[in-house]
Amino acid sequence: MIVLGIDPGTANTGYGVVKGDGRGLVSLVECGVIRTSARQPLPVRLLEIFDGVTELLARHRPDALSVEDVFYAKNVRTTVVLGHARGVVLLAGQQAGVAIFELPPAEIKKAVVGNGAATKEQVQFMLTRLLRLKSVPQPSDAADGVAAALAHLMSARVPTLAMARQRGATA
Amino acid sequence: MIVLGIDPGTANTGYGVVKGDGRGLVSLVECGVIRTSARQPLPVRLLEIFDGVTELLARHRPDALSVEDVFYAKNVRTTVVLGHARGVVLLAGQQAGVAIFELPPAEIKKAVVGNGAATKEQVQFMLTRLLRLKSVPQPSDAADGVAAALAHLMSARVPTLAMARQRGATA
Repeated sequence: MIVLGIDPGTANTGYGVVKGDGRGLVSLVECGVIRTSARQPLPVRLLEIFDGVTELLARHRPDALSVEDVFYAKNVRTTVVLGHARGVVLLAGQQAGVAIFELPPAEIKKAVVGNGAATKEQVQFMLTRLLRLKSVPQPSDAADGVAAALAHLMSARVPTLAMARQRGATA
Repeated sequence: MIVLGIDPGTANTGYGVVKGDGRGLVSLVECGVIRTSARQPLPVRLLEIFDGVTELLARHRPDALSVEDVFYAKNVRTTVVLGHARGVVLLAGQQAGVAIFELPPAEIKKAVVGNGAATKEQVQFMLTRLLRLKSVPQPSDAADGVAAALAHLMSARVPTLAMARQRGATA
């Protein structure tokens, strides 16, 4: 099972492609960041994010797309612009016909570390360990994308939890 | 000059296509609503909105796409989901290569009525009059789309204002 995890952002959209053998062994296929320039108008940046995610979906043909839920910034404007970026990520997934799962940050932490209030460092430590990497994926947005993919793989082993989440995504 | 105006929403995305003869005479070409079902998952609804706007752009080949800015609902979650819908509208415009203009609600009211604090009824009255319609476009989301298109046409006659807005959209 291959999962593409995405941490949406207008400046940096982190992604991670993680493979699971169905018996608990997971490995990292690829990770990185889709960067856009702040000098470009928002529609141009949205097209870059959309094209980047569409290309990843076409190249890896994942079984699932796991998208981190919006981080509610104190600045409402920032949160809304983030919603724009997340919208085109979900659209790319729907166009590709892949199963889409939306995970709140706390659920990602819980699935990877076992604690919904874990720190960023704890998440990075655990994913480095679970994927047997020599160092933490860089930059941190890429690591967040990997964590989203890993969280789906970890929780997908508990069918009822995965089903509940899919229903949640449908609501 | 043909302008497609859009009032984005996850349930109802209103649109209006308005034509200007360049000498102040404006006429309504078409208006309506792209409806999505609340029972569908968000990614499905976003695809319906994206496909609907893409179809309108292909059929009318407008010179400009005028998109109402996000209404900041008291419920942050509602505002963020609206950001998702608006994101796929801007993406459709960028993919089609049309000039995109983002207008805050107050600017639409000011361009149509001459007062940024005008009521919905005042806006509907003025657009019915300016477009020489027998009645207000229905439903109100369609009227909001028409207002966005009309506002761009009205302000485009003042070149410096239109340029300032385009710079704003680029920032």
